[in-house]
Amino acid sequence: MTAKNKITVKRNAQPKEKPATDQLAFGTVFTDHMFVMDYTEGTGWHDARIVPYEPFMLDPAAIVLHYGQTVFEGLKAYVTDDKEVVLFRPDENMKRLNRSNERLCMPNFDEELMLDALKELVSLDKEWIPDREGTSLYIRPFIFATQPYLGVAPSKTYRLMIILSPVGAYYKEGMNPVKIAVESEFVRAAVGGTGSAKTAGNYAGAMKAQEVAEAAGYSQVLWLDAKEHKYIEEVGAMNVFFKINGEVITPSLNGSILEGITRKSVIELLQSWGFPVTERKVSIQEIFDANAAGTLEEAFGTGTAAVISPMGELSWGDEKCEINGNQIGELSLKLYETITGIQTGRVEDPFNWVVKVD
Amino acid sequence: MTAKNKITVKRNAQPKEKPATDQLAFGTVFTDHMFVMDYTEGTGWHDARIVPYEPFMLDPAAIVLHYGQTVFEGLKAYVTDDKEVVLFRPDENMKRLNRSNERLCMPNFDEELMLDALKELVSLDKEWIPDREGTSLYIRPFIFATQPYLGVAPSKTYRLMIILSPVGAYYKEGMNPVKIAVESEFVRAAVGGTGSAKTAGNYAGAMKAQEVAEAAGYSQVLWLDAKEHKYIEEVGAMNVFFKINGEVITPSLNGSILEGITRKSVIELLQSWGFPVTERKVSIQEIFDANAAGTLEEAFGTGTAAVISPMGELSWGDEKCEINGNQIGELSLKLYETITGIQTGRVEDPFNWVVKVD
Repeated sequence: MTAKNKITVKRNAQPKEKPATDQLAFGTVFTDHMFVMDYTEGTGWHDARIVPYEPFMLDPAAIVLHYGQTVFEGLKAYVTDDKEVVLFRPDENMKRLNRSNERLCMPNFDEELMLDALKELVSLDKEWIPDREGTSLYIRPFIFATQPYLGVAPSKTYRLMIILSPVGAYYKEGMNPVKIAVESEFVRAAVGGTGSAKTAGNYAGAMKAQEVAEAAGYSQVLWLDAKEHKYIEEVGAMNVFFKINGEVITPSLNGSILEGITRKSVIELLQSWGFPVTERKVSIQEIFDANAAGTLEEAFGTGTAAVISPMGELSWGDEKCEINGNQIGELSLKLYETITGIQTGRVEDPFNWVVKVD
Repeated sequence: MTAKNKITVKRNAQPKEKPATDQLAFGTVFTDHMFVMDYTEGTGWHDARIVPYEPFMLDPAAIVLHYGQTVFEGLKAYVTDDKEVVLFRPDENMKRLNRSNERLCMPNFDEELMLDALKELVSLDKEWIPDREGTSLYIRPFIFATQPYLGVAPSKTYRLMIILSPVGAYYKEGMNPVKIAVESEFVRAAVGGTGSAKTAGNYAGAMKAQEVAEAAGYSQVLWLDAKEHKYIEEVGAMNVFFKINGEVITPSLNGSILEGITRKSVIELLQSWGFPVTERKVSIQEIFDANAAGTLEEAFGTGTAAVISPMGELSWGDEKCEINGNQIGELSLKLYETITGIQTGRVEDPFNWVVKVD
């Protein structure tokens, strides 16, 4: 770390009251501190600092408000059974954030510095990490364009922030398979677009489909490809896996699918168990055919929030299929318990995925 | 207008120095005032106010920074030769902004109130409107999600702002045909996505292609469809027209193309002149074939900034075509002079497109 990159710390003199760990939702409460760093063309990233969490001043003409030049990441800190504070594969998030930067014409940052910043911030606010089963501290690094300019062009100035939010258990009443609507009208991303980057526009564009699906009684939508409306891409904001006739398959990374870190972990775990995993194109017709033939054994989404989210029912136009009798699959459960076990230190970590904060 | 919607005005006690009208760029300088209005779920839009232009406070967790829930418009105020201040078809912009709101799951606003707000703000800052040939006051209404929440869901609170920027002539050294690269890798928008809405993500995603094209010596990219990379969609951030064998053709509004107001005005003008205009699918191959056959007479982009932007050269992979000897076409020039003439009061306005501010 260069002198320029040294992280200064200004402690919050008025720490907030922490919420009860049994009443935590997702992403509504924030801790006492945040990390901030600024970028100026010519100077590079500068003024890395930890300061009290608070609103900041933004010019009404800031590029992020008009042209959405912004990228983000999401990861979690956990308290292990041994009371250690750990992160799960944070290096993967930092690499992906820089890949997103590249796609959005935004400046890369030093991943080592960012890992230091993550650890220092989490350590400072570690009293905020809830330790109830399934809870965690959600970490949101994000970078956005701040130049006041209405021309459509990459900004010459940026701000990078990391904020922290204690979050409740995703499965408050135990894991439950969800009902999914296959989306036939709206499209999340096209090859050649921004689908593989973690950037704002992908999420804004997805809200309408989610709204329609929820109104019809579904939890999430299953996204199909933009070209043929035929091949499966993601489910909600998660990657998706199917177990058919003993083989696990997942859509290959084609440029419009997010390179999920839980996705990658699931593939690596399955391979270490000697389980066949195939990354390839998967059509929605194939899934319905497999179900009709009785060979569709499990289906689940993967993501940082849920880790594993079993799908119990798929609805596609007039067709419906119930998966595994709407029960959690054996492999889904094993993956969930292994990954959350590694995250909380209850299960051995043969891959060195877990990084200690202190 | 209800009492709730009454616009309060707080004048800027420290007006800024106005830039010299011969040194104006685009979107870098802002006037003394801005319009602001807030939305709260349950209450609706409230606190419509004109206040001094200045940065505002935003929570680091505001949805706009993470999930890009934001829409905008762009239009211009002009000083006519009779020293009247006018707007060009502002009702169309307000309608489109509400259509964008709908796609992005954002709350509609009262278009009458917004037109009043536009006029009152422009009137207050009318000394900022440059009157040099080709200059104007650019008006940027925009709405963004302000709720501090990291869940991916429509915000429960929004802010609407209108800011003003005096802008220089688009064609400082006279109108010139530009070199365009046909984009074969990146995609602007897919049918089922957000391409027909004026929302941030469309612009963030387009920056990379523009960067690559500029580095190769081109002014803009010509976007092809996401499905087949075959049909023409837009050029840069403009709609596009071709004149082939006496007929004007433009890509039909297919859901991924922005419904440009200049596009609409061009079509209406041409029809009033008895000129055949066809809205249909236009393949890039057709354009190159027409050029080879000697029937491609003109090609131009249309948008608020340039009004008409003639294309002089198209590059598509290894193929190039020069259009109309790299000269401005007769019809392009007539459209430009008519529309800018109507905007500045030099040409009769048979359509009542122009709206007086005072």
